[in-house]
Amino acid sequence: MSTTRLETFADGVFAIAATLLVLEIQLPGEDIGQGLLDLWPSYFAYALSFLSIGIMWVNHHVVLSYTREADRIFLFINLFLLMSIAFVPFPTAVFAEHIGEEGAREGALAYGLTFVVIAVFFQLFWQYAYRRLLRPDADRREVSGINRSYLPGVPMYVIATLVALVSPTAALVLFAAIALVYVSASIWGDEEVV
Amino acid sequence: MSTTRLETFADGVFAIAATLLVLEIQLPGEDIGQGLLDLWPSYFAYALSFLSIGIMWVNHHVVLSYTREADRIFLFINLFLLMSIAFVPFPTAVFAEHIGEEGAREGALAYGLTFVVIAVFFQLFWQYAYRRLLRPDADRREVSGINRSYLPGVPMYVIATLVALVSPTAALVLFAAIALVYVSASIWGDEEVV
Amino acid sequence: MSTTRLETFADGVFAIAATLLVLEIQLPGEDIGQGLLDLWPSYFAYALSFLSIGIMWVNHHVVLSYTREADRIFLFINLFLLMSIAFVPFPTAVFAEHIGEEGAREGALAYGLTFVVIAVFFQLFWQYAYRRLLRPDADRREVSGINRSYLPGVPMYVIATLVALVSPTAALVLFAAIALVYVSASIWGDEEVV
Amino acid sequence: MSTTRLETFADGVFAIAATLLVLEIQLPGEDIGQGLLDLWPSYFAYALSFLSIGIMWVNHHVVLSYTREADRIFLFINLFLLMSIAFVPFPTAVFAEHIGEEGAREGALAYGLTFVVIAVFFQLFWQYAYRRLLRPDADRREVSGINRSYLPGVPMYVIATLVALVSPTAALVLFAAIALVYVSASIWGDEEVV
Repeated sequence: MSTTRLETFADGVFAIAATLLVLEIQLPGEDIGQGLLDLWPSYFAYALSFLSIGIMWVNHHVVLSYTREADRIFLFINLFLLMSIAFVPFPTAVFAEHIGEEGAREGALAYGLTFVVIAVFFQLFWQYAYRRLLRPDADRREVSGINRSYLPGVPMYVIATLVALVSPTAALVLFAAIALVYVSASIWGDEEVV
Repeated sequence: MSTTRLETFADGVFAIAATLLVLEIQLPGEDIGQGLLDLWPSYFAYALSFLSIGIMWVNHHVVLSYTREADRIFLFINLFLLMSIAFVPFPTAVFAEHIGEEGAREGALAYGLTFVVIAVFFQLFWQYAYRRLLRPDADRREVSGINRSYLPGVPMYVIATLVALVSPTAALVLFAAIALVYVSASIWGDEEVV
Repeated sequence: MSTTRLETFADGVFAIAATLLVLEIQLPGEDIGQGLLDLWPSYFAYALSFLSIGIMWVNHHVVLSYTREADRIFLFINLFLLMSIAFVPFPTAVFAEHIGEEGAREGALAYGLTFVVIAVFFQLFWQYAYRRLLRPDADRREVSGINRSYLPGVPMYVIATLVALVSPTAALVLFAAIALVYVSASIWGDEEVV
Repeated sequence: MSTTRLETFADGVFAIAATLLVLEIQLPGEDIGQGLLDLWPSYFAYALSFLSIGIMWVNHHVVLSYTREADRIFLFINLFLLMSIAFVPFPTAVFAEHIGEEGAREGALAYGLTFVVIAVFFQLFWQYAYRRLLRPDADRREVSGINRSYLPGVPMYVIATLVALVSPTAALVLFAAIALVYVSASIWGDEEVV
């Protein structure tokens, strides 16, 4: 099976998951002015999750650009990766609702665990492509650069999630930092970094 | 009409139906830690339905890969198939809300019936393609292998649904087993199996 | 501008509008068994609207297959058509909630009016393509057959909507009949009929 | 990276954001007839936002038609632009719920600010394409015409948002006027105007 069809389906799930995030923002109650301001954790969580899904989308394409075809195992790894990404709106809502309040720890844990799962499936997705489905004309140095750049993904999210046990606020800062590191590395670094 | 347009529309419906599943998970109430754990039936139902829709998506493509063109009847069979797949988020939510509680039987029945309907429309979809729209260059042995592999679909879901009358929990295990059988068959079996 | 891009965007809106319909079905309350049965108006409305959107999708493609390119006016007519189609989940929910109860008349009117607006925009969409953007190689007899077949659309929906003033149930039957007429005509008739 | 993939993802987000708008319309309560009429601000806001997203979609394509390829910075500017567009259903709901009532000012401000942010990201998106990624065969006069035509976007939305501080109703009229100006300019003007 060519990777084009897989790409269309995946692009759909990425675009829908990102766009559904907005539905989880609750409308403010009576005092609309204060209500809109008090929703800042929801805006922050929306932006963070949208950006994180966007980064996954970019990297998903990077992997496919080095893949010569898709076999059945790859198809199902991809399905599990998409399943974890499509789940993001739920922990985002839980997280946003409790930032700076009771339940902040559990919210941050749920959010972090979701991204740990995403990172694990993404690593699986990449490793399978890298070891089994690499295009014959792929530049070996480029590919091992990419391989190195994907290695910190899982540990970074594991650490940020563990930090949530101690301080949900610090975890929140770490989640944002991870996203910004990816964006910066992608923009200012060379291909190897993202 | 070429099958490409049909594929784009169908891929859209598959991707959206799978991604909408997450919206049916209710946010936990006050006690967020316990609330998140108590939602395990929702996570389970989410994963099961996402996987089942994903399997249907893979098989939908298998059928189209053997189809030379789409006529109007095929177009409407496809529409009814998509209508039943886009319905999945509703019984998934009903099912998840009642696992292990009062109403579990009715929830499992609603879930099972939806998949019986999907399996019937899928059988119709395949049989119509197989008898009327087969590509002239399709390998006859491959095609009759696929035909055999699709036959158990309807009876398997009918049995699992009937089991729900006696034990909703057993039905739940069967639904998961059917999905895993498809995934395994697809991965470890040869083309004939899925 | 080529019509391909317009098609991708339109296909997206059609697929999403159809798939969102399921979200408007309210989960049943305590008595789940009876609750699931009492929701039959929602299932009926879901199927009717999904089918109607599907028919519009098929006809949208028929129009584009005779169109050589898209100009700005055509682009905006298309946008207004999509705006009316993406609105369908709302009157569907209003309609479903009141079938056979108080408010059935208003629900049926809202539903009918939405489809009158869709039919008017579709007629505009087709007439503009027919008079200004027809492909030079389009078969004149085929095209005027299509033109005749699209003429009853607006009056049929206007009549069904007026009937809702007298009997919402009769209007409901008419809405379903219109959809079935389109499907049958499309399947058993020749190209001229749809 | 070619701009095709970016276009597919962007088209998905535009189509989904526009179609999700309908979910923010609350179902009318007991008195359905009056309730449906009282929802006119929601219908108005729905149409306005759908049209505005549609206009952004058209202009997004205009920009890409002059772009020879996408680099990483362009990819992320695009991601931020899409993030602001996918946010539209939220301020649309806030705005619609308070038109002509208490909180109208805050609703109009939230709506206006969202479109200021969209206009800023769009300007960035265009300026980056214009200065760095222009296709070598792009007609210089055409391109500087487009450049001039995009300049009023940000100030127009800033002014309409400031007007909301004094009169939310006047702001509402201005938001609609901006959309209609774009549609008219696009239809009756030459390429330079939109």
